[in-house]
Amino acid sequence: MNVLFDHARHARIGLPEAVLCQGKDPETISRIVREHALGAPILYTRLTPETFARLTPEAAASLNYHPLSRTAWTGTMPQAPRGRVAVVSAGTADGPATHEAARTLAYLGIGHTVYEDRGVAGLWRIGEHITEINAHDVIIVVAGMDAALAAVMGGLTPKPVFAVPVSSGYGASRNGETALFAMLASCAPGVTVCNIDNGYGAACAAARVVRLLNE
Amino acid sequence: MNVLFDHARHARIGLPEAVLCQGKDPETISRIVREHALGAPILYTRLTPETFARLTPEAAASLNYHPLSRTAWTGTMPQAPRGRVAVVSAGTADGPATHEAARTLAYLGIGHTVYEDRGVAGLWRIGEHITEINAHDVIIVVAGMDAALAAVMGGLTPKPVFAVPVSSGYGASRNGETALFAMLASCAPGVTVCNIDNGYGAACAAARVVRLLNE
Amino acid sequence: MNVLFDHARHARIGLPEAVLCQGKDPETISRIVREHALGAPILYTRLTPETFARLTPEAAASLNYHPLSRTAWTGTMPQAPRGRVAVVSAGTADGPATHEAARTLAYLGIGHTVYEDRGVAGLWRIGEHITEINAHDVIIVVAGMDAALAAVMGGLTPKPVFAVPVSSGYGASRNGETALFAMLASCAPGVTVCNIDNGYGAACAAARVVRLLNE
Amino acid sequence: MNVLFDHARHARIGLPEAVLCQGKDPETISRIVREHALGAPILYTRLTPETFARLTPEAAASLNYHPLSRTAWTGTMPQAPRGRVAVVSAGTADGPATHEAARTLAYLGIGHTVYEDRGVAGLWRIGEHITEINAHDVIIVVAGMDAALAAVMGGLTPKPVFAVPVSSGYGASRNGETALFAMLASCAPGVTVCNIDNGYGAACAAARVVRLLNE
Amino acid sequence: MNVLFDHARHARIGLPEAVLCQGKDPETISRIVREHALGAPILYTRLTPETFARLTPEAAASLNYHPLSRTAWTGTMPQAPRGRVAVVSAGTADGPATHEAARTLAYLGIGHTVYEDRGVAGLWRIGEHITEINAHDVIIVVAGMDAALAAVMGGLTPKPVFAVPVSSGYGASRNGETALFAMLASCAPGVTVCNIDNGYGAACAAARVVRLLNE
Amino acid sequence: MNVLFDHARHARIGLPEAVLCQGKDPETISRIVREHALGAPILYTRLTPETFARLTPEAAASLNYHPLSRTAWTGTMPQAPRGRVAVVSAGTADGPATHEAARTLAYLGIGHTVYEDRGVAGLWRIGEHITEINAHDVIIVVAGMDAALAAVMGGLTPKPVFAVPVSSGYGASRNGETALFAMLASCAPGVTVCNIDNGYGAACAAARVVRLLNE
Amino acid sequence: MNVLFDHARHARIGLPEAVLCQGKDPETISRIVREHALGAPILYTRLTPETFARLTPEAAASLNYHPLSRTAWTGTMPQAPRGRVAVVSAGTADGPATHEAARTLAYLGIGHTVYEDRGVAGLWRIGEHITEINAHDVIIVVAGMDAALAAVMGGLTPKPVFAVPVSSGYGASRNGETALFAMLASCAPGVTVCNIDNGYGAACAAARVVRLLNE
Amino acid sequence: MNVLFDHARHARIGLPEAVLCQGKDPETISRIVREHALGAPILYTRLTPETFARLTPEAAASLNYHPLSRTAWTGTMPQAPRGRVAVVSAGTADGPATHEAARTLAYLGIGHTVYEDRGVAGLWRIGEHITEINAHDVIIVVAGMDAALAAVMGGLTPKPVFAVPVSSGYGASRNGETALFAMLASCAPGVTVCNIDNGYGAACAAARVVRLLNE
Repeated sequence: MNVLFDHARHARIGLPEAVLCQGKDPETISRIVREHALGAPILYTRLTPETFARLTPEAAASLNYHPLSRTAWTGTMPQAPRGRVAVVSAGTADGPATHEAARTLAYLGIGHTVYEDRGVAGLWRIGEHITEINAHDVIIVVAGMDAALAAVMGGLTPKPVFAVPVSSGYGASRNGETALFAMLASCAPGVTVCNIDNGYGAACAAARVVRLLNE
Repeated sequence: MNVLFDHARHARIGLPEAVLCQGKDPETISRIVREHALGAPILYTRLTPETFARLTPEAAASLNYHPLSRTAWTGTMPQAPRGRVAVVSAGTADGPATHEAARTLAYLGIGHTVYEDRGVAGLWRIGEHITEINAHDVIIVVAGMDAALAAVMGGLTPKPVFAVPVSSGYGASRNGETALFAMLASCAPGVTVCNIDNGYGAACAAARVVRLLNE
Repeated sequence: MNVLFDHARHARIGLPEAVLCQGKDPETISRIVREHALGAPILYTRLTPETFARLTPEAAASLNYHPLSRTAWTGTMPQAPRGRVAVVSAGTADGPATHEAARTLAYLGIGHTVYEDRGVAGLWRIGEHITEINAHDVIIVVAGMDAALAAVMGGLTPKPVFAVPVSSGYGASRNGETALFAMLASCAPGVTVCNIDNGYGAACAAARVVRLLNE
Repeated sequence: MNVLFDHARHARIGLPEAVLCQGKDPETISRIVREHALGAPILYTRLTPETFARLTPEAAASLNYHPLSRTAWTGTMPQAPRGRVAVVSAGTADGPATHEAARTLAYLGIGHTVYEDRGVAGLWRIGEHITEINAHDVIIVVAGMDAALAAVMGGLTPKPVFAVPVSSGYGASRNGETALFAMLASCAPGVTVCNIDNGYGAACAAARVVRLLNE
Repeated sequence: MNVLFDHARHARIGLPEAVLCQGKDPETISRIVREHALGAPILYTRLTPETFARLTPEAAASLNYHPLSRTAWTGTMPQAPRGRVAVVSAGTADGPATHEAARTLAYLGIGHTVYEDRGVAGLWRIGEHITEINAHDVIIVVAGMDAALAAVMGGLTPKPVFAVPVSSGYGASRNGETALFAMLASCAPGVTVCNIDNGYGAACAAARVVRLLNE
Repeated sequence: MNVLFDHARHARIGLPEAVLCQGKDPETISRIVREHALGAPILYTRLTPETFARLTPEAAASLNYHPLSRTAWTGTMPQAPRGRVAVVSAGTADGPATHEAARTLAYLGIGHTVYEDRGVAGLWRIGEHITEINAHDVIIVVAGMDAALAAVMGGLTPKPVFAVPVSSGYGASRNGETALFAMLASCAPGVTVCNIDNGYGAACAAARVVRLLNE
Repeated sequence: MNVLFDHARHARIGLPEAVLCQGKDPETISRIVREHALGAPILYTRLTPETFARLTPEAAASLNYHPLSRTAWTGTMPQAPRGRVAVVSAGTADGPATHEAARTLAYLGIGHTVYEDRGVAGLWRIGEHITEINAHDVIIVVAGMDAALAAVMGGLTPKPVFAVPVSSGYGASRNGETALFAMLASCAPGVTVCNIDNGYGAACAAARVVRLLNE
Repeated sequence: MNVLFDHARHARIGLPEAVLCQGKDPETISRIVREHALGAPILYTRLTPETFARLTPEAAASLNYHPLSRTAWTGTMPQAPRGRVAVVSAGTADGPATHEAARTLAYLGIGHTVYEDRGVAGLWRIGEHITEINAHDVIIVVAGMDAALAAVMGGLTPKPVFAVPVSSGYGASRNGETALFAMLASCAPGVTVCNIDNGYGAACAAARVVRLLNE
C-alpha cells in the first residue's frame, strides 16, 4: 500500500495531515512513522493499544501515545494565542471520543478544558459549571445513547456547539446511530454534528473556528 | 367486515374496549357507533376530522368528539377515587398524542393535568413545575425529535414514567423512530416506552397503575 | 476515566446508583468497587464472567456475583413492605435478561417470583399459572424472537406489564429489534417496553410502581 | 405497454395467470379485460375501487368485482374434490388481505372458511374454534402489528400454516415489516411466510398443497 | 436455566421437540442430553463443531452428530410411508442450511434427495434435473445472495415450494436479508419463505405437508 | 432558481446535458425550455404527464414528449455508426424505466431493441430470444421485485450488462431496494447496477461503451 | 394548542425565537402572527405556499414571505458589523434549503453571498470562485444525492464548514439520508453536519460563529 | 460439500470460473485446488492470509498468492490484444478492493494501471493524472466513506466507469453502504456500481467491455 501525503493541506485548510490507523496493519503504521519521524508533526488516530503493542520498537519509541484516546503524535503544533474549547461529555463510556477530541486539540495547539460525566439524568452536573463552560469560545459535546446532553447544552450556550455521538450503549442505542439522529433532530438551534465517535473531527471543526479568531 | 367485541376484556384486564378508527372507512365506523350507542361506553381513537365529517349524522351526533386528539366517546367510565396523572409534553407538535393521552384518561375516569411546551431547550420550563408535577402518581412524557425531555424527566421524578415518542419533525427525526430509540436508550432508569404517537397506550399503562392504587 | 457518582439520585428518584460494566475495563471496575466498598450498596450490571475473572482479587471478593444475570452487588436495599413482581419469560434463551430483572429486584428489596419457559407455542404453560401470576402487583415479561408472549400476557392481566425484548434468535430476529417492535405494536393495551435485554430497566420500572404502593 | 401472457403456466405449475393491477392504469386494465374476456378465467388482484370505477363500462361489466378484497375475475376454476382451507385473521384491519386470500381460493375452486377477529389479546376467540379449524387441511393466518396469532396458531395445529403479515397499524408496525419479521422468527416450527398483504400468495401456496391431495 | 419440555407437542402438532443449541453453553446442552438420553428422540440444531467438542464425553457419545449441518440426534422418528422432499440449493455456501433441512427430514423419517449447486447463473444445472425434482412431493429451495433460484424453481414446479434464504455473501447480501426479501417479493406465485438459514423450519413445513399425505 | 448549464460536458464526457424535471415546478421547466429552444438538443427526464400538462403552450409545443417514459427532447443527437443496445425487461410494471432507457438511447442516437415481459417465472420467454439479444453490443436489464432476471441474463451473455432495479411491487419489494441489492449481490459476474428506476443512467452507461466502439 | 414562547432565549443563546410551521394548521399560525405582530421580530420556517395562502389576510399582510425558501418574518435583527457567510449549493434541487439558509442569515442580520449550481460533476464551477468563497468567514454547503460537494469544499477551505444534506433525488438518495451519511463520513476534516433540508440550522450555526467574531 | 464447476461458462459469457473462498474451510479449498491443479486456470478470491496459511502445503504451493488483494490463481488467461483499464482509488483503506480488481485483470490477461490515494479532499491528486487516466479504455473507481471520487471521476472522463464502494471507515460509513448509495445517487451520468468491496466484479465488468473491443 502506497501512501501519498497531502503536504499542502496545512497551508490550504489550516489542518495538518492525520493518519487514521484503523484498517492499517502494524507494519504499515511502523513504516509511516519511520519515514516521517523527522518531518512535520503527524497525528495518529484510532491506534488501539493492541496495534500499538505490535509496532516496531523504533516506531513506538518515537510516538507520544495515549491509550484511552487511542491517539499518538510525533510532535505538536505551536500554541494558538486566542480561542479556548470546552469538551463536555455525558458519561464514562464517552471517554475515548472525549479524549480523542482533547488530544487532537492539544496536538493542534488549542487550549481546552474537559468536563466529564455531565449527563442530563443529573441536571445539576451541568448547571453548576455552565458559566465556566460558557467562558470558552467553542463547545464540543460528547454523548451516546439518547444524547440528550447535546440538546440541553445547545439551549444553555450562545457559543458554537459541535456534537459527537458515541457508539456506547446497546440495543436501541444502535451503535451510536440513535445519538447521531437525536443530535441532528435536536430542537436547540445551530448545533452541528460529527460522525459517530469522531472526536478528532469535532476538534478539527473547533480548530477552524479558532483559526478564524486568530486571523 | 365483521367486528367481534371483546366484552369480557373490561372484567379481565380492567380496560374497556377501544376502537382504532385508522384503516376503517366511515361506513364501518358509523355502523359500530350505531350498534353500540346504547351499550357500555366505547372510546374511538385516531378518528381524524376528515373521517368524522363523513360519518352518518346519527353516528356523529352520538359521539363526544375532540378534533386535536382525534378521539371520540359515547360516554365515560366512573371516576377513580385515587391516582392522578401528569401529562408533560415537549412542544406544540406533540399536541395530538398529548391530548389523546389526556382524553383517554378522562374517558377512563382518571384525574390528570396537562403541561405543554416543556422542551429541554429551555430547562426552566420544566424546573419551575417539577414539584407540582411530582405531586402526581404517574407521569406521561410526550416528545418528538430528540426526545430529550424523557431522560430529563426520568432523572427528576421517582414516579412511574411512561414515554410516548412523537412522529413530528423531519429528516433525522425519521417519523418518530429517533425519539423512540432515544427514549429506550435513555440513561434515566425505569422509563418505559409506548409505540410512536400512542398517547392512548400511555394512558392505558397509567390506568393499570392507578387501578393498583385503588385495589 | 473519572467517574462522578450521583449520590443524590436515590433521594431524588428512589433508585440507587448502578454501574453499567459493559465498555469499562477490569481495572476501572476494580477501582470503583474498591472506592465504594464501604459506602452505600451499589449494583453492577453487564459484568460478564470473563470480565469478572479479570477483576482484582479484592474487588471480586467484595462482590456478590451471579454469572447468568451478569450482575454483582456490594449489598442490597432494605426489603419493601408491599408490592410483589412476577418475572415471566418465554424461553431459556431469555435467561440473562430474566435474571438481570430478578437480581435487580432482589437488590432493590422487592419480592418477586420467576416463571421461565412460558412461550406461546405451548399456551398451556401460561394458562396453568395465570391466576398465580395475577396475584402479583407488577408483571415483567421477557421474550425474544416474535415476542408473542407480551401480547398474550397483556390480554390476560390487569396489572402493569413491562416488556423486555431479548436479542436471542437469528436472522429475522434482528438482534432483538423484531421483539422490540412487536412488543411496541402489540394490540394488548397499556403494555410498555424497555430497551433490548434491559432486565435492569424493567426492574427499575417495577420499583417505581412498588414505591408508589409503599408511599 | 405490451403484456405477454404465460398461457402455459397453468399446465406447468397448476396456477392460472393472474394480473396485478397495482401500477397499471385503467386503460391498460380495461384493454386486458377486453382482449381476454372470452378466454380462460383470469384473476385480477389489487384492483382498488378507485381504479375499478375508472374502467370502461364494458370491462367493468365483464368482471365479478369484490371491493374489500380488491379482486375481480372473469370466471372461476372447476371445484377441487379434496382439500379445504381455513383463513384465520387477527383483526378487522386484516380484512383486505384476508378476503384476497378467500377470493383467490374461491377463484381456484378450493373450499374454505373464514374466521375473522381472532387476535391473541383475547385467547378464547381462538380456543373456541380450534377443533373446527383443525378439521381443515391447510391454515392461512393473516395478522398485522405484532402478528402473535401466527405463533399461537402454529403451536395449535399440525396442518400446513401459511402466514400473511399485514401492513395495518402505525409507528412500530413499520408498514407490516414487524409482523413479517415476527412471523419469520416465530418459535412455532414449520410456519412459512408470504409477502406483506399478500393474501393471493398464501392462497396459491395452499393451492399447491391442495393440488397434491388431489393427485 | 430451567428447561421445560413440551412433551405434548408431538401429539398436538405432529412435530417432536427440538433443542436450539445456539445461545446455550456446553454444560447446559450436556445436561439436556444426559437427562433425555433414554427418552424419546430429540433433534439438536445449530450445534457448532466448537460447542460439540466441549460437550461431556458421555453427551457427545450418545449423539449422532453431523458437523456441516450442525445437527445431532439421539434417535430418529419412524419412516413415513408416503411423501418425498427435494432439497435444491444454489451454491456450496448454502451447505449448512441445505443439510440442516436434509438432516431434519432424516430425523423426521421423511424420504428426500439433495440437489446442490444449482444456481441460476448456469440455468442448465436446473433444467437437466427438473423432471426428476418434480417427481418429489415438496420442494425446499435454499439460496443466498440474490436468491434467484427460488423464483426460477417456483415457475418450474406445481409442488409446494418452501424457500430458505441463506446468510452467505457480503455487502449487498446483507447477511441474508436480500435473499429473504427477494424470495418474498418473487413473482412465482405460492412460494413461501422461512427465516434466514432456517433449514430446520423448511423441513418442518415440509413435514406438515407430508403428514397430510399420510392421513 | 438559477440554472447553470454545463455546456462543456458534451465535449468532456461525451454525454449532452439532461434536465431532471422531478422537483422542478412547471414555470421553471417552461423557462428552461424557452431559453434553450434554439440551442443544442436537451433531454428532459422524469417529466410526468401532470407536469407536462402544466407547461406553457410554447414550451409544450417545442418538446417531443413520451408519457410512459416521462421523457421529452428538443432534438436528438446524430446517429452512432456502431453499437446496438438490447433493453430487456421483466414485466409490464417495468415500463417507465424500460422506456426511459430506450428513449435516452434514441436521443443519444444509439440503435436499440426493446424486449419486454421476459421475467424468469417463465424462462422460455428469455430462452427463445437469447441468440438475438446476444447479437447486440450492450444489454440493459430492467427488473423489479426479486430482479432474478439480472442474474439469469448475466449468466447467458458475454456482453456488458447494466441492470436497472425498479420500484414496482409492494411490501418486501421495499420500493426497489430489494431489486437493487439482489442485482448487486448477483452471482453472475460483471453485472453492474444503476440507481432505482434510473433507465436514463443505464442508457448513459451504454453510451459510454458505444462511444468506445466508435473511437 | 398552547404555545409558550421562550422570550429569554435570545439573551441566553443569541438566537431569537423561530416558529416551525410544518405540522401547524393555518389557524394556529395566523394566531401566532397576530399575537406577536407588534413584538420582537419572529422568523417562520417551513411555511409552504399552500399554507401561506390559507392564513388570514391580516396575518399574511404582516409577513415578509419568500416562497422558494418557505420562510417569512415580521422584521429582521440589526446588522452584524463583522462576519460574512458563503452559501454554496450543488444543484437547483437544493434551492429550498439554500434559500432557507440565506433568508435566515438575512433575518439574523448577517451578510452573505449565495453560489448556486456548483456540483462536482463540473469541478470548474467551484474552482473559478474558490478564492472569492474563501474570502467569507463561514461556508454553508448545501447538497443532495451523493453530496460530494461537501468533501470537495472541505478540502479547499480553512473556514468553518456547515453542511446541509438535501432530500432531493430518488431511489438510492433515500430522502437525503445518503447525503447526510456521506457528509458525516467525509474525509475532509472538520466539516460538521445539520439535519436534512435544515438550512435554518446551518444559518444558526454560522450565527454562533459570527457572534463570536463580534464579541 | 459437493462443488459443480460450470466449465461451459468461459465459452458462454467469456469469463472463466472463479472460486469465492469466503465461507469455505481450508480443507474444502485445498481439495478444490488439488482437483483442478492441472486443468484450466482458476481464480480464488477472498482468500485471507489466515485461511491461506491453513491450506495443505501442496495446495499452497500450486497457488500464486497475493495477500493484500486476498487472491490466488493457478495460472492466467492469454493477454488481450486491445483494451486497457485504469484502477483509481481514493485512499489506502481501499487497498484490498483496488488490488482485487487489479489482480483479477492480470488473471484475465487485461492490461491495467493502478492509481492510488486520489481522494477528493486533495483534488490536485486527480487533476494531475486525468489525461493519463483518460488514455485508458475503462475506468474502475474504488472509494469508501463518502465515495465522492466516483462523482468527480464520472464528470472528468467519457470512458465507461465502474465504481466499487468500500467498507472502510466507521459510524456513518455504515460498512460501505454510504459509499454504495452515494455512488448510485451520483449526478455524474452513466457511472454504474458493483457490490461493496467487489473489485473482482468491477474487473469482470471491465472484461466484458474489453472483450467487445477485441471482437
